[in-house]
Amino acid sequence: METPSSTRDRLIETARELFRSQGYNATGLKQVLAKAEVNAGSLYYFFKSKEDLLLAVLDRYVELLRPAVLDPAFEQTADPIERVFAVLGVYREYLSKTGCTLGCPIGNLALEVDARLVVRERIALNFNNWCRGIRECLDAAGDRVPPDLDRQALSEFVLTVMEGGVMQARAHRSLEPFDRSVAMLRDYFNRLLAAGPPERSDADRAPPPPG
Amino acid sequence: METPSSTRDRLIETARELFRSQGYNATGLKQVLAKAEVNAGSLYYFFKSKEDLLLAVLDRYVELLRPAVLDPAFEQTADPIERVFAVLGVYREYLSKTGCTLGCPIGNLALEVDARLVVRERIALNFNNWCRGIRECLDAAGDRVPPDLDRQALSEFVLTVMEGGVMQARAHRSLEPFDRSVAMLRDYFNRLLAAGPPERSDADRAPPPPG
Repeated sequence: METPSSTRDRLIETARELFRSQGYNATGLKQVLAKAEVNAGSLYYFFKSKEDLLLAVLDRYVELLRPAVLDPAFEQTADPIERVFAVLGVYREYLSKTGCTLGCPIGNLALEVDARLVVRERIALNFNNWCRGIRECLDAAGDRVPPDLDRQALSEFVLTVMEGGVMQARAHRSLEPFDRSVAMLRDYFNRLLAAGPPERSDADRAPPPPG
Repeated sequence: METPSSTRDRLIETARELFRSQGYNATGLKQVLAKAEVNAGSLYYFFKSKEDLLLAVLDRYVELLRPAVLDPAFEQTADPIERVFAVLGVYREYLSKTGCTLGCPIGNLALEVDARLVVRERIALNFNNWCRGIRECLDAAGDRVPPDLDRQALSEFVLTVMEGGVMQARAHRSLEPFDRSVAMLRDYFNRLLAAGPPERSDADRAPPPPG
């Protein structure tokens, strides 16, 4: 006999798949039930409403960020700047595998769901955690990134580039707009890194060892 | 008596408003009819389907790009680089006026509508024309933009920043993420402009006037 938790899990995973592939508004609870092979009573035992199911899906994405996005990217390289671009590579791979039909599920929901505060907060939490992952890389890069640059803003900018690039890739059903936007971000990073740490003045330098 | 063209126009404007505010999938044709005060017979006289109405809405956005987006931005300044940021300012104004509930209607559709080729092409046409408007500014900036930089990619990057910034502003119901992403783009442009035109070698210089 199936445990309650596995039924709940299957509902979440089925809803996650359907919201991702066809959108939240286009997905009916009946479709979720049929695909998950669960009856309505079980659904309403776990979730009061479709929105309640959406909250659980968004919580699942919060859980998945490290194992499904950040860890696979960070395993590819130890260089903190390359890790930023490896994260973008995870989305490129996902676009590529789906013929540019699917991009970032959170981005879709952010634009589609004009929902109550509790849902928006969960979408914002996903974005915040994503940016925190990038921010960790930027902090690890130390003064290779100009110290006077706003690193929080730069981490959000990386998210901006991912989402804007994914959107154009989906519209054109082509990886090229995504690749070109990432190449521009790379050019920006190259210019930032070339600016490098500020020259130290003599006053900042440690005194020579005595003797 | 109302002319056919005004009925058709009202259907398009009503659908445009509803698709923009609540999404394509969440909008039913019945709602369009009720709000436009048009009967179903008239709707089907002009449009075979909801998708057909969407195509007309997307054509309307193609027509509106210059008068509603580019012209108001370009009127603010003659400087081609400032014009790029004035276009972004049009979207900021729109976010601001709607409490960050509405952003770019084409971006919403690009992520929501997984439609037939003919619809996607019309979405891509809107993006292409938008980028062409930015590209005109970059070309007008001449060699203030490094000549070896891919200007097509840079114009798409500006769209990327607008769309990614709008998305985060909507998720957070705050202009701040939009402003921070635009500030990063500004920093990138500042670094590009500081790189400036390449130093001419003596060989490139025009000979001094004789005498």
